[in-house]
Amino acid sequence: MESHRILDMISSPADLKLLTNEELSILASEIREQIITTTSKTGGHVAPSLGVVELILACHSVLDCPHDKLLFDVGHQSYAHKLVTGRLGEFDTLRQFGGMSGFPKASESEYDVHPSGHASDSVSVALGLAMARDLNGGDEKIVTIIGDASLSGGMAFEALNQLGQLQTPMVIILNDNEMSISRNIGALARYLGEKRASREYTRTRDSVQSVLEASGPLGRGLVDLGRNAKDSFKQMVIPGEMLFEKLGITCTAPIPGHDIAALKRALRVCLKADGPTLLHVVTKKGKGYEPAEENPSKFHGIGPYDIATGEVKKGSSSAPKYTSVFSKAIVAEAERDHDIVAITAAMKDGTGLAAFSEKFPKRFIDTGIAEEHAVALASGLALGGKKPVVCIYSTFMQRAFDQLVINNALANTNVVFCLDRAGLVGDDGPTHHGVFDIVYGRMVPGVRMMAPSDEAELVHMLHTALALEGPVILRWPRGEARGVELPAVPQVLEEGKSRTTREGSDVAILAFGRMVQEAEGAADILAKEGVSVRVVDMRWIKPFDEEAVRKAALECKLVCTAEEGAIEGGIGEGILEALAANPPAQVPPVLTFGIPDEFVEQGKVPQLHHMLGIDSCGMAARIREKYAEL
Amino acid sequence: MESHRILDMISSPADLKLLTNEELSILASEIREQIITTTSKTGGHVAPSLGVVELILACHSVLDCPHDKLLFDVGHQSYAHKLVTGRLGEFDTLRQFGGMSGFPKASESEYDVHPSGHASDSVSVALGLAMARDLNGGDEKIVTIIGDASLSGGMAFEALNQLGQLQTPMVIILNDNEMSISRNIGALARYLGEKRASREYTRTRDSVQSVLEASGPLGRGLVDLGRNAKDSFKQMVIPGEMLFEKLGITCTAPIPGHDIAALKRALRVCLKADGPTLLHVVTKKGKGYEPAEENPSKFHGIGPYDIATGEVKKGSSSAPKYTSVFSKAIVAEAERDHDIVAITAAMKDGTGLAAFSEKFPKRFIDTGIAEEHAVALASGLALGGKKPVVCIYSTFMQRAFDQLVINNALANTNVVFCLDRAGLVGDDGPTHHGVFDIVYGRMVPGVRMMAPSDEAELVHMLHTALALEGPVILRWPRGEARGVELPAVPQVLEEGKSRTTREGSDVAILAFGRMVQEAEGAADILAKEGVSVRVVDMRWIKPFDEEAVRKAALECKLVCTAEEGAIEGGIGEGILEALAANPPAQVPPVLTFGIPDEFVEQGKVPQLHHMLGIDSCGMAARIREKYAEL
Repeated sequence: MESHRILDMISSPADLKLLTNEELSILASEIREQIITTTSKTGGHVAPSLGVVELILACHSVLDCPHDKLLFDVGHQSYAHKLVTGRLGEFDTLRQFGGMSGFPKASESEYDVHPSGHASDSVSVALGLAMARDLNGGDEKIVTIIGDASLSGGMAFEALNQLGQLQTPMVIILNDNEMSISRNIGALARYLGEKRASREYTRTRDSVQSVLEASGPLGRGLVDLGRNAKDSFKQMVIPGEMLFEKLGITCTAPIPGHDIAALKRALRVCLKADGPTLLHVVTKKGKGYEPAEENPSKFHGIGPYDIATGEVKKGSSSAPKYTSVFSKAIVAEAERDHDIVAITAAMKDGTGLAAFSEKFPKRFIDTGIAEEHAVALASGLALGGKKPVVCIYSTFMQRAFDQLVINNALANTNVVFCLDRAGLVGDDGPTHHGVFDIVYGRMVPGVRMMAPSDEAELVHMLHTALALEGPVILRWPRGEARGVELPAVPQVLEEGKSRTTREGSDVAILAFGRMVQEAEGAADILAKEGVSVRVVDMRWIKPFDEEAVRKAALECKLVCTAEEGAIEGGIGEGILEALAANPPAQVPPVLTFGIPDEFVEQGKVPQLHHMLGIDSCGMAARIREKYAEL
Repeated sequence: MESHRILDMISSPADLKLLTNEELSILASEIREQIITTTSKTGGHVAPSLGVVELILACHSVLDCPHDKLLFDVGHQSYAHKLVTGRLGEFDTLRQFGGMSGFPKASESEYDVHPSGHASDSVSVALGLAMARDLNGGDEKIVTIIGDASLSGGMAFEALNQLGQLQTPMVIILNDNEMSISRNIGALARYLGEKRASREYTRTRDSVQSVLEASGPLGRGLVDLGRNAKDSFKQMVIPGEMLFEKLGITCTAPIPGHDIAALKRALRVCLKADGPTLLHVVTKKGKGYEPAEENPSKFHGIGPYDIATGEVKKGSSSAPKYTSVFSKAIVAEAERDHDIVAITAAMKDGTGLAAFSEKFPKRFIDTGIAEEHAVALASGLALGGKKPVVCIYSTFMQRAFDQLVINNALANTNVVFCLDRAGLVGDDGPTHHGVFDIVYGRMVPGVRMMAPSDEAELVHMLHTALALEGPVILRWPRGEARGVELPAVPQVLEEGKSRTTREGSDVAILAFGRMVQEAEGAADILAKEGVSVRVVDMRWIKPFDEEAVRKAALECKLVCTAEEGAIEGGIGEGILEALAANPPAQVPPVLTFGIPDEFVEQGKVPQLHHMLGIDSCGMAARIREKYAEL
């Protein structure tokens, strides 16, 4: 196929250095078109990636990667980076099973420095790289791109605090798009807003522009800038800037983030500094694609969509998503109980709290990307008599494990943790799979934990959790539920009691959450072969139904456990321990189904279930084999 | 016994309100004497507690607790608080088994708000209480005392960021003692130092003093202050203060922290504000006890000591501490391998890195209290070609679980994590026991994990960990090792291989770390009863020696696992899972020894081991009983 695109001629970032700024602008348009074309089929983080195309081109034009290191905080904005680092050919496999990751991934490219995915970590990693460079006597440049929302995460502050002390050169590019995943939170955001709006900004920008313009047009400017980097830098700095300066990090005025020439020049100035610098860049999320510009939250992370209209392509399922069932259930609970408050860490839409926030704005709390604070804050609210419901994705709750232990379990607070995206999440891959929560939850004394097997169960479990004292964790998967009827009135479930959804006497599958459905599928398959399989929806991960376990062990020839979480430390092991501690007369063989001890790549959830042998067919096959041995 | 002490007449904080400032000063001296007398026998956090006696008296004189809420970040500075809230009578049980906790504990007193122990969480909890108050229409005051070192923890920043936005009234008392556990780290610390030293401070302090003095002497000042709180406050604020102000938190000039009158007046002014305030108090750690003033780091947390000399009373053990064995071993390794860097999160002395820091100052990194950053920083250093050794107490590593998963395991970095204080730590109790690390370590794919059973093993294991690729966790207990000879040359241990320390054929105990010693003790006891017990020092938690497990199951009538960590999700369960996944012809009964599903209180480690049935006698008893059934 003949191509007239510049993009097709870019095999590595070195090629960018040969392009004029005008050509780079054309390339930016081509990259946007490519991102839109591909993500309209694959889905993806469209708005973040469209917002930083010029910024990435500017970075790769100025830097010499992979010798220099370019890091991406969170990393879902890195599509343009992937396209100019030799991965155009595979770009249509983005986020697909066996294809290209939607995040930077070192095994995919030498240009990808670290596996990002969780916010606010890149300043720490970059500082580590800078310190290693200094120890090694190296000369590589270290640059990280971090969004304004990620800057609210405490570990970014921890890193800035040390960076300000050490004064080693590195560049933090603050990608200020005035818009985190939903909206920006906190005093820092307000501060940045004031900075953008201030007259000082305007004045300074003019002076920055004049410095830049003076250095630019004739092409000799860069040499001058090199000689006079310090002076130039001083002129770039906002006089009124204090926050980062007080921490010892020199900060530029806001630079227009879609002006490649300005970005290149500003970055060159920052790279000449002999200490840490923060390059403040103002970008527009979704830039260049109208539907994304108009609704950047919708286009933050999106499934396949129609390019012309921006409409998301509907799936064939008629079942509601777990998130939307929760969304309605928490509003209904909050109408009955005025002590309920809901907390999210920058995931109002993703966790289903948008409706709650509109209905109960005073009882809705968004901490920004700050899971540690969110979970400790909940403990304070509970100690003050409220009933906090903390809504965090399973994978991000990993950030707040200690606050679960100390501030909630040890304090025995009445806090309900709703972990959405528990289990395998699909396209986002290993940084986003929620496969550790069963382990980090069940090990904590005093915590109770449930997993709904369908949307009606979710409604009952939320109601049950709110009726209990002490911390309770609920975990449910991403995506569609089973399409069962929702209860008119939610019930309080009996603590630690399972329900049997299929009777059977040869084999028992003790299943948790979404695995109940797969277990029933396996039972159907095996029934046709004359094997009678009992399926127990365990409901409770902690305390689990030891009586049902015992009964299964006594009555069936083979017992299986099935959970969508890590086997190491998982509830299957807990069931084995219960059987060992209090063994029935005859202990049958036990098979544990779950996520094996490896990081699981991206793909559609059914593909991943199949690969791991935890779909109906895989479970049936392993049970068939084992049963035949008995 | 007749007493002339004011302290003996204080049954609740309300009594403090009746005392003059002169009487409060006398009381402060009595409290110091009591703290020194008691801790000289019990040990404890002497220097932090001595530093804030006046501050606590001032708070309780002004506040109306328990209606008002007084929080303590970390909480080890709360002894004076305990003494004036009705706990003088039990104070000699401080940190003793069955006695009073060394930290605030809600079940101990209605004056203790939350179970503190891990740094930097109190601003979040306090903000939660303040938000609950606002929702409830309450009027309670919320005050938290936080050290300058704790302020470097990211979650404190997350909380300040939200507090600055919400503008709800609460008071953060910054206890600035210019001295964290070892020394203060980071740009924030430097900033505070500049603030203390600045002429503006001096000038402002004078003006604050004049405001305070004007309002004080005649007793009517408080009414005036009430009326003119805003104006008074403005005069207290440092003109040059920008850091906290930029976050929307009004900040006072530094107030002399041992002047009760000044503290009371400053706190009253802050409490009148209609938004969040930061009351900057300068205290001296160890105040009033010369040995502690001179060596606050030694007296941060200390065992029983001689009051006259300040010398620590020596234990009877001749064995070295694990920490000091590590201290020498890491220096020896670093002499051989120049890529080794060592990282601590404000625990240079506690983790045994003081010698390393003196010998290799450029390769030593103290992040301050910032475990998340420390662990992600290590990943950057490793990606840059260094070999970071991260030294963090087991309990504090809970803060960095996510950074272990994403930044190190998924990134497959060559980082060694040395978790000191793994298992039960003794006197510090539930916030400090390191009982979860086996679970949070073994669940993470790609992580390897070892536990030394004596100090020679520690030396070999450190050497082995440094020779491996990918993240490796070592965990060892607090306190004395076994007194075995140290190897002249450390060896690389074979991966996943155990060693049998006692031969035996009736019962096998598969033991990890310090439990090997207890298992050997149990074997000795049972040998006298004619039961032959094999003891296997498993060495590796992950990957563990499946062959040794299998052999034990085939050859012995009873198999036991023994770990000093949570049973739920622990390695005992992992061994059960391995036996279930690949069962030998005959699976014998299995007993799992470990920490049951509850928070363990403080006490001497042998007392706690005994209580939990994981000392030699307890293990022997349970084995005897089970063995008799077979």
